[in-house]
Amino acid sequence: MTFEERTLQKEEIYSGRIITVEKHDVELPNGHRTTREIVKHPGAVAVLAVHEGKVLLIKQFRQAMEEVLIEVPAGKVEQGETRDYTALRELEEETGYTTDDITHLYDFYVSPGFCDELISLYYTDQLIPSDELTADDDEFVEKMWVPVDKVKQLLQSNQVRDAKTMLALQYLLLNCNHSN
Amino acid sequence: MTFEERTLQKEEIYSGRIITVEKHDVELPNGHRTTREIVKHPGAVAVLAVHEGKVLLIKQFRQAMEEVLIEVPAGKVEQGETRDYTALRELEEETGYTTDDITHLYDFYVSPGFCDELISLYYTDQLIPSDELTADDDEFVEKMWVPVDKVKQLLQSNQVRDAKTMLALQYLLLNCNHSN
Repeated sequence: MTFEERTLQKEEIYSGRIITVEKHDVELPNGHRTTREIVKHPGAVAVLAVHEGKVLLIKQFRQAMEEVLIEVPAGKVEQGETRDYTALRELEEETGYTTDDITHLYDFYVSPGFCDELISLYYTDQLIPSDELTADDDEFVEKMWVPVDKVKQLLQSNQVRDAKTMLALQYLLLNCNHSN
Repeated sequence: MTFEERTLQKEEIYSGRIITVEKHDVELPNGHRTTREIVKHPGAVAVLAVHEGKVLLIKQFRQAMEEVLIEVPAGKVEQGETRDYTALRELEEETGYTTDDITHLYDFYVSPGFCDELISLYYTDQLIPSDELTADDDEFVEKMWVPVDKVKQLLQSNQVRDAKTMLALQYLLLNCNHSN
């Protein structure tokens, strides 16, 4: 069995500040034709940071659902940036910490049914307070330190409702040698 | 410190078959104004299904990245459906199995920076072959059975690149009493 769809045509429908919406005409494996709505996104990074036995999370208002969410530090890849650079920049902007020891864990698509956003997850347990005031003017976040031995409880309480953050915290629980 | 943004105006920019794009003018906590691009999405469900010591996954072509991805059975909530109903419908359409014993695990936002898509994750270890031929004409998927004791290896290989699927598989590893 073959799965592949054949792209017949792509049309840009909306081009915004961050996302672009495209309509793809495709031919399905059975020869039928259909259209797919695709959102193109520049991608993002997220950082699982552990410091003195605590995980560094942030609380942030999210306009899409008009809720405050608990998340790992994260942000979009800006044009011309490497993902490694974005990870350090976002960590510093959102938390005031930097590091010279950061590891790339893995990459994942967050909504592959319609969007190509790929998030790269990083890990560090070597945080250093930054000398620079680098907060993004548009960003209002509050730091939250969660002891590693409370992470399981935090996940079970379903207070964390952000997929990348749940993934990062599950990863921490599964790899507890990283947790101090 | 307050995080809340105050919505001043919402404008619909694009209305598609599945998604809607809105532009929100907001007032930030510091009084500055900015705009946010928001994608409205009907939401989706995903099912972690374990049967005879194996996890039921599917391989599916995803036009957004033009790749075949390994995923848990999943799909969009259609208008008028409860999420419980969608879970059973998608499970049946994509795998040919149904169940009369399914548990809601938790809900998560997959891309809260710009999109309100909420995924509800379900669990079942009571699969029953369905009598009905219910495959969606537009959907071409191949079933893949992964022994529970190979899940850790599958995750480590980074062959699974879909966030909801990684979340579901990490959940399984963390709750191994569910695994048979």
